[in-house]
Amino acid sequence: MNNNGCRTGGGGGGGGKPNLATPLLLLCLFSSLALNSYFCSSHLHLSRRRPLPAASGWARSAAAEAEAVAAIDCSGHGRAFLDSERAGGVPVCECNGCYSGSDCSQLLLDCPADLDSGDPLFLEVYWQEHAASSAVVFSGWHRMSYITNGQSNSFISDELDKNIRLLHQVVGNAIVDDKLIILGAGSSQLINALVYALSSSSSNANSSSPALVVASIPYYPFYKAQTTLFQTRHYAWEGDASNLVNSSADNIIEFVTSPNNPDGQMKHSVVRGAAVIYDHAYYWPHFAAIQAPADGDVMLFTNSKVSGHAGSRFGWALIKDEQVYLRAIEYMQLNTMGTSHDTQLRILKLIKVMIAEQGGEKDIFEFGYNTLKARWSRLSNLISSSNRFSLQQLSPQYCNYFKKIRDPSPAYAWLKCEREEDEDCNKVLENAGIISRGGALFEAGSHYTRISLIKNQDYFELFMKRMEALVSNSSSSAASA
Amino acid sequence: MNNNGCRTGGGGGGGGKPNLATPLLLLCLFSSLALNSYFCSSHLHLSRRRPLPAASGWARSAAAEAEAVAAIDCSGHGRAFLDSERAGGVPVCECNGCYSGSDCSQLLLDCPADLDSGDPLFLEVYWQEHAASSAVVFSGWHRMSYITNGQSNSFISDELDKNIRLLHQVVGNAIVDDKLIILGAGSSQLINALVYALSSSSSNANSSSPALVVASIPYYPFYKAQTTLFQTRHYAWEGDASNLVNSSADNIIEFVTSPNNPDGQMKHSVVRGAAVIYDHAYYWPHFAAIQAPADGDVMLFTNSKVSGHAGSRFGWALIKDEQVYLRAIEYMQLNTMGTSHDTQLRILKLIKVMIAEQGGEKDIFEFGYNTLKARWSRLSNLISSSNRFSLQQLSPQYCNYFKKIRDPSPAYAWLKCEREEDEDCNKVLENAGIISRGGALFEAGSHYTRISLIKNQDYFELFMKRMEALVSNSSSSAASA
Repeated sequence: MNNNGCRTGGGGGGGGKPNLATPLLLLCLFSSLALNSYFCSSHLHLSRRRPLPAASGWARSAAAEAEAVAAIDCSGHGRAFLDSERAGGVPVCECNGCYSGSDCSQLLLDCPADLDSGDPLFLEVYWQEHAASSAVVFSGWHRMSYITNGQSNSFISDELDKNIRLLHQVVGNAIVDDKLIILGAGSSQLINALVYALSSSSSNANSSSPALVVASIPYYPFYKAQTTLFQTRHYAWEGDASNLVNSSADNIIEFVTSPNNPDGQMKHSVVRGAAVIYDHAYYWPHFAAIQAPADGDVMLFTNSKVSGHAGSRFGWALIKDEQVYLRAIEYMQLNTMGTSHDTQLRILKLIKVMIAEQGGEKDIFEFGYNTLKARWSRLSNLISSSNRFSLQQLSPQYCNYFKKIRDPSPAYAWLKCEREEDEDCNKVLENAGIISRGGALFEAGSHYTRISLIKNQDYFELFMKRMEALVSNSSSSAASA
Repeated sequence: MNNNGCRTGGGGGGGGKPNLATPLLLLCLFSSLALNSYFCSSHLHLSRRRPLPAASGWARSAAAEAEAVAAIDCSGHGRAFLDSERAGGVPVCECNGCYSGSDCSQLLLDCPADLDSGDPLFLEVYWQEHAASSAVVFSGWHRMSYITNGQSNSFISDELDKNIRLLHQVVGNAIVDDKLIILGAGSSQLINALVYALSSSSSNANSSSPALVVASIPYYPFYKAQTTLFQTRHYAWEGDASNLVNSSADNIIEFVTSPNNPDGQMKHSVVRGAAVIYDHAYYWPHFAAIQAPADGDVMLFTNSKVSGHAGSRFGWALIKDEQVYLRAIEYMQLNTMGTSHDTQLRILKLIKVMIAEQGGEKDIFEFGYNTLKARWSRLSNLISSSNRFSLQQLSPQYCNYFKKIRDPSPAYAWLKCEREEDEDCNKVLENAGIISRGGALFEAGSHYTRISLIKNQDYFELFMKRMEALVSNSSSSAASA
């Protein structure tokens, strides 16, 4: 098992004469053997270096520490983490918004219900209920190298690559066989990597003018913000895709977000001949019916909206063309030299759980769908009783994953204030103690505003209470008018 | 402890008449109480949602799995990881370069000693020897949110911020009190974030010409590669700093790498009035004497070269000016929306171990210094016997951390081929089975080449064997000439 050719015995000191007393000879021989054995094992130790620890229980104290932190009572309105701030050596509770106190038991009065961001905390409770299967232990020496074995430029482990493909296959939301996978720190990082890759690809590289980057209104504001900040001479933000429907330009990059953020509609490319980046962040059974596997040449996904781990910063793209893939890899190498291997190990574990539980009682998609369906149903029932507000139209649809017709369960409500005087819908909600994201950011006009339905239950309940009051006040003021 | 005002009892159904039979009354009362109790606890369950798991041993199976993987025998020339490819359900060994076989016991003949990259695997054995203290358990619900509590734009936990400062204080390599900390996916990401921040800062923003980005030769090639790829109209790569020593331009950004990569020299700014980014990646006791705490306005550090976890992609910058900090934060928000919280937790654990062990028998700096000192000593002894090659000059220096004079222990050997005909030194080594990084990449001419001394021991031993043969052949060919 080692190649040092080192054997116990052999060699030895100068030959003792045969006529020496036998006991002395034996003593010498044994001493020599012992010395040889010592040197040999020392040499062995040096050349083999230190062995990995055996199953000696080295991970036990870390496990006990994590369990102790998980048992800290934060009244169901918060949680302590291993890296939470400490008081007296013990991590303190980090409370959900609008909750306070050392155990998060105090509801703060006049605290706004913050439904601005797409923070996917609606799935936190799922993982709390699957603690044993989703836990993962990091050894101190886990993947210290820049690269994974034998893959000098892709920075992804074979096992993770395999399991991402498997997840798509069991969900049926993307065709993976003819695609390459590239990882990013969230899909955020990949958005610009793909714009770079497509604007520098062979068909565009010879163009003297920069590639024009567009999306259909309403669109996710991040595309514009990022492309504008990072634009080079190779590409620039152009805005509304509908302005280029009849364009003859040959270097257009179009973002197609489907289901769309903010309004949950299934979208298609509108610019003929554009290089399309399909952002399928929300094309999972939590949020939409899976009608057919997506098969775009360039498709984006993010773990933030599948397992809900936005804090891990982990996304991936499926890319058909190898040249585009290699350009994106080049971007990743020079931007961050790959993606955290720590995150990769953790995400692998989470993906394995999602695959193992799919179709059963603990299916995360069933859980996510049921949670969001219930939220949407409560909200849309409320709004339907009001003529001050309206919501986007979504219909039940057959879902290949659930093998049944499913109700709408969008990630966001795209609320419209119908009264002319409610020009700034975001402001109307803000005055009622609800923080949303104004429609102007999505280039859709300020009569619209986006409400996140994927945050934690505390915020959703607070939001519903405020919204009920708002609708009720609106009705009574309309009645008294 | 809960704020629902829910009490067992109270309320109840319609009032029973006082003249009803007592047993019936009691039955009703108890039934009502029981129902109240049931509804109350249901409501409680709903509003408090599911409690966090108690200390029920949920982390145990993950710990056992990690221990089993760590116990897989890879002959000291490799290791299996939790996310290694699997055969029969068991992770397979990932062998060090030039080793092969299912247990990594076979040394491959004619395999080049690859000392090209700065992969810091020399520290892997340190962490293997400190398995218990450096292990960390991730719960499935660890920090799923984009942001840490109450810090909407910095993406760093208070606990990590505190411990990074503490690490600098115990090592004495940087003044932290008047600085802000920003995290990145390696210092790689921060390099461009800082160029962006400095080129867009108030003094440069009004300038019509792009900021010029420079470094002194020989310099780390990544600065040029990244700045060139990502350049915007605000900045551009300009090359050698010495060309701008007498420049009157007011928008110059200078990289000062100290100790320098590739040659380990302590460097200073050469361009008067430049905005300086001090890259102190190697300013740790492993690699250099700590002579005084660094106090630049903008300083870069990376975990890759402190704990050796390059695969984690984790670096940080200390920034004095708040405006520069905020511009860098803006870049981070739009590039990757912060840094993986998974990585942050793991790095926190590693930093805590480094702080706890400093000055004692298990001091990582003592370990790192001793390892690299021994390598440098062996190599420089060998090279001193040759007139075909030479190395950079490094002297023993007093180190405030060790409180003694320490020998040189650089991360890289900066080798020069002295013979005129050895024009391409990188090629000379390549022909002898050694992969290095040619001097041309550092703009220093091809008579130089960089040899990484921080990779694993297997590569270093193979390299020394090849180098000994090369030096010996050179001497004998010189003698016979």
